[in-house]
Amino acid sequence: MENIDYIEIIGLCAAFLTTASFLPQVYKTWKTKDVSGLSLPMLTMFFTGVVLWLIYGLLLKSPSLILANGITTISIMLLFIFKIKYRNR
Amino acid sequence: MENIDYIEIIGLCAAFLTTASFLPQVYKTWKTKDVSGLSLPMLTMFFTGVVLWLIYGLLLKSPSLILANGITTISIMLLFIFKIKYRNR
Repeated sequence: MENIDYIEIIGLCAAFLTTASFLPQVYKTWKTKDVSGLSLPMLTMFFTGVVLWLIYGLLLKSPSLILANGITTISIMLLFIFKIKYRNR
Repeated sequence: MENIDYIEIIGLCAAFLTTASFLPQVYKTWKTKDVSGLSLPMLTMFFTGVVLWLIYGLLLKSPSLILANGITTISIMLLFIFKIKYRNR
């Protein structure tokens, strides 16, 4: 149990850092409405990958993987909505 | 063993998809030498996060996490080198 806690603290730090580096992109797209740099095929590929990481985390019962990829899944869904909403500006 | 293989196949698909969506960024930066969009604090934060995911993967003995974050660690080191080499262009 002590070992699991120590491993999970490292995972949660990892989850915090990589998720937090992704959020400014979402914020920037929301503010600027500039979606020209977002490629739909790339976004779809990344989205599929993150959802698979989420499933992998659920199967391994890893709180860090579930947390990080849950938040990132929501973030990419927002980017999808922005891309479709603002593509013709 | 059968269960572990099935979970690991999902993880390896996740690893392939998220790593492959990251590589075009590295290629684009290498080709264009345009590093103006890369923020050093953000890169440092993301790098630290990915290295912690790698350590987490090693502690959990997860081949998928080790593979994905190993390749991403090398990719971000390349972005660091480009950023420092081309920052004054």
